[in-house]
Amino acid sequence: MSVHKENLPIIIIGAGLSGTLLATRMAQRGYDVILIEKRPDMRKVDISAGRSINLALSDRGLKALRLIGLEQEILDLTIPMYGRRIHDKQGNTTLQSYSGRANHFIRSVSRQDLNIKLLNAAEQSGKVKILFESPCTHVDLQKGIVHYRDRGGNTKKIAGQAIFGADGAGSALRNSMMRHSGSLRFSFSQKFLKHGYKELTFPAWKGGQHCMDKNALHIWPKGGYMLIALPNLDGSFTVTLFLPFEGENSFEQLQSPQQVIAFFKKEFPDALEHMPNLSKEFFEHPTGALATIKCFPWQTHGKTLLLGDAAHAVVPFYGQGMNASFEDVTILDELMGTSFDEDWLKLFKRYESIRKRDADAIGDMAEENYYEMRDKVQDTTFVIKRKLDLALEQTFEDYHSKYALVTFQEDIPYHLAMQKGHCQDDYLMQFSSNLNEEFADKINLKILKLQLDKKCPS
Amino acid sequence: MSVHKENLPIIIIGAGLSGTLLATRMAQRGYDVILIEKRPDMRKVDISAGRSINLALSDRGLKALRLIGLEQEILDLTIPMYGRRIHDKQGNTTLQSYSGRANHFIRSVSRQDLNIKLLNAAEQSGKVKILFESPCTHVDLQKGIVHYRDRGGNTKKIAGQAIFGADGAGSALRNSMMRHSGSLRFSFSQKFLKHGYKELTFPAWKGGQHCMDKNALHIWPKGGYMLIALPNLDGSFTVTLFLPFEGENSFEQLQSPQQVIAFFKKEFPDALEHMPNLSKEFFEHPTGALATIKCFPWQTHGKTLLLGDAAHAVVPFYGQGMNASFEDVTILDELMGTSFDEDWLKLFKRYESIRKRDADAIGDMAEENYYEMRDKVQDTTFVIKRKLDLALEQTFEDYHSKYALVTFQEDIPYHLAMQKGHCQDDYLMQFSSNLNEEFADKINLKILKLQLDKKCPS
Repeated sequence: MSVHKENLPIIIIGAGLSGTLLATRMAQRGYDVILIEKRPDMRKVDISAGRSINLALSDRGLKALRLIGLEQEILDLTIPMYGRRIHDKQGNTTLQSYSGRANHFIRSVSRQDLNIKLLNAAEQSGKVKILFESPCTHVDLQKGIVHYRDRGGNTKKIAGQAIFGADGAGSALRNSMMRHSGSLRFSFSQKFLKHGYKELTFPAWKGGQHCMDKNALHIWPKGGYMLIALPNLDGSFTVTLFLPFEGENSFEQLQSPQQVIAFFKKEFPDALEHMPNLSKEFFEHPTGALATIKCFPWQTHGKTLLLGDAAHAVVPFYGQGMNASFEDVTILDELMGTSFDEDWLKLFKRYESIRKRDADAIGDMAEENYYEMRDKVQDTTFVIKRKLDLALEQTFEDYHSKYALVTFQEDIPYHLAMQKGHCQDDYLMQFSSNLNEEFADKINLKILKLQLDKKCPS
Repeated sequence: MSVHKENLPIIIIGAGLSGTLLATRMAQRGYDVILIEKRPDMRKVDISAGRSINLALSDRGLKALRLIGLEQEILDLTIPMYGRRIHDKQGNTTLQSYSGRANHFIRSVSRQDLNIKLLNAAEQSGKVKILFESPCTHVDLQKGIVHYRDRGGNTKKIAGQAIFGADGAGSALRNSMMRHSGSLRFSFSQKFLKHGYKELTFPAWKGGQHCMDKNALHIWPKGGYMLIALPNLDGSFTVTLFLPFEGENSFEQLQSPQQVIAFFKKEFPDALEHMPNLSKEFFEHPTGALATIKCFPWQTHGKTLLLGDAAHAVVPFYGQGMNASFEDVTILDELMGTSFDEDWLKLFKRYESIRKRDADAIGDMAEENYYEMRDKVQDTTFVIKRKLDLALEQTFEDYHSKYALVTFQEDIPYHLAMQKGHCQDDYLMQFSSNLNEEFADKINLKILKLQLDKKCPS
């Protein structure tokens, strides 16, 4: 480890998933870290409140957990999901594998379980001090000073040699940058989808058994809206309804328990069977909004840096939000190298210059996938195309679908995964539009693969 | 005028160009208006400070001024500009007319002169009360209450039946909407150009004469950067340097008077002759940033509405910022009709639903024109294409270039002007790329016009 020129601590705002991971890594690098978190300690108080407590962990996320030595401990908390299990109107299901390879799958994990492990790891490093119930009010970007309110409501401030904003989509550090938009030329966008989400549950069966195939991500696609379900360790499923806020078949239309039950009876009858608490949960849980956030620059004066959702919040439809945030830490750590000279300005500028295009790419792909999951998973051409994708993956070691490039190829940057993935998808969709389903089995894959290699080089 | 159901006043935040115009119109409609302005009264204090005090007024802006009966009074303050006068490296100039028609030109006007006339008009209505030095701190969107600080620094609040945010690119009303992003699903973007601007001057010659052709907008295009100059009534020109913030030939590189003079001597020698105060002005005036701002929704709860730059700030390269903001008032007034029933929610929703695409269109076109003014005005194909555009306008009553559609056809919405304009431009650029300049004069315009009509119907 390098000699530390400055005695000031590193300050990280936000003790969520990326903040705690970064804190642990910085502690391993020998830094004193102060972690400032606005919420109470989730190990003592339940703060989940029906909000996205279920996540899909994949290879980019695992790579970051490996970096801090926590991979195996986290893997023990996960449930493998090998594909999308599609539920049709009649209650029939079909499995669309995520990959043609047995070792390529994603994992369902509880946000709370994961965050608690990371909080413990940060504290066990002996170099991370966590201040809970301490909301950051603003950051002095030039001086590198974080202002916050302590538990008693008193205004406090603290200086850091580097300040990281890992404080999520509503980032206080980013808000401080916004206040200096003109001088920083701080470009920013937040774009909301017309759809919101509501978290619901399939309870476990007696004895802790799952009520459906637990090794899949279940989807009920309906064109304009959809339901998904991810398995939990305790035998339950976390279920999420994605629905427009307004118009026909919207949250606006579901104002009474009768309306909710009738809607599920009509649209999701096989799901309704597993939802004894539907109307209670529906009206107790908030309706969440979904936004993509982009901004630039991410760093100011070599003093502060935005990471994770604070820098690039994405919609949840590629299952990459957490994985992208974890990967931020991997990339930053790689750039620090083995002997970091504490030129934070150089580090931060280098980081934002290589990472921005990857964050933009996953943000864009997540939006695209929203339309794919909602509209296309039952489309004939799309089904044939997925079939070819899988056959190619099973036949050729070096073929990876766009989904596989993003999800399982953790060493390929998102922007390159997107470039190659789009190229392959365009070609295969065009190719599939001329086929019917039976004929797809008789395709000469070798020729198809040659065409793809020519069209979409690495 | 309709009977007013509510006794609360209308509150307008911002006594700039659109705020004062709207206030006057609302007063004419019989409303009591309170206008809250953070700056001092510009009729008593000079607040220009070297920032964009020069504007191009065109037909959309004039239409709005006509609405409040101020058109002639304002016209007397303007100087006609019939085209772009392009300055090349050797100091030669050529005039690119804005139109093939004599009555189609734009007008240079001082922001301050115009704003003062509008402040006077608002006060003379007898129904508008202006509170200067009273910055809005935030707005209670649900209750329709504006919070502000008065001159003594005291916190005050005031309720309105409708609250308009005409408070520019840094709008306090918009910031209040941002604070409720999730529940409003408030989509927002601000995008900065890599270029900044610096305001400079060509002083008047003795006797108040202009040092160059006063009836043109002068441009020194240089590829990566440019200088422009607009005439003032007192014989001076307001000059603006557009230059990247960083890199080669940038503001960053111009740190000393010697560097500034050397840069102008090399790049703009014929302009330098007219700039005795160059280095003084250069270091006294701020370097401004340029951003496009888009957001949606513009209204909340039928209580508040964003207008002008607060809703849709644009970069200055189409000369439409003020004209678009004035047009907002025209459109709103048209929707209120002759007997407005004070259903503000219905009015505001209708307004934002029809006006948003037009604001987006002018924002996009202003960015495009930045590249056109900077890079293309000396490009051969572009010059031929402009020649054809002008010939078509001179020959056919019903042909209007994109520029003319935007600038002189005040009854065509921006989004339709853009649609048709892009179609024509694409066709003419393709057509021109196969011609040399002499041959362009021999084109059969009748056939070209038929092709354009077929390709780009109204």
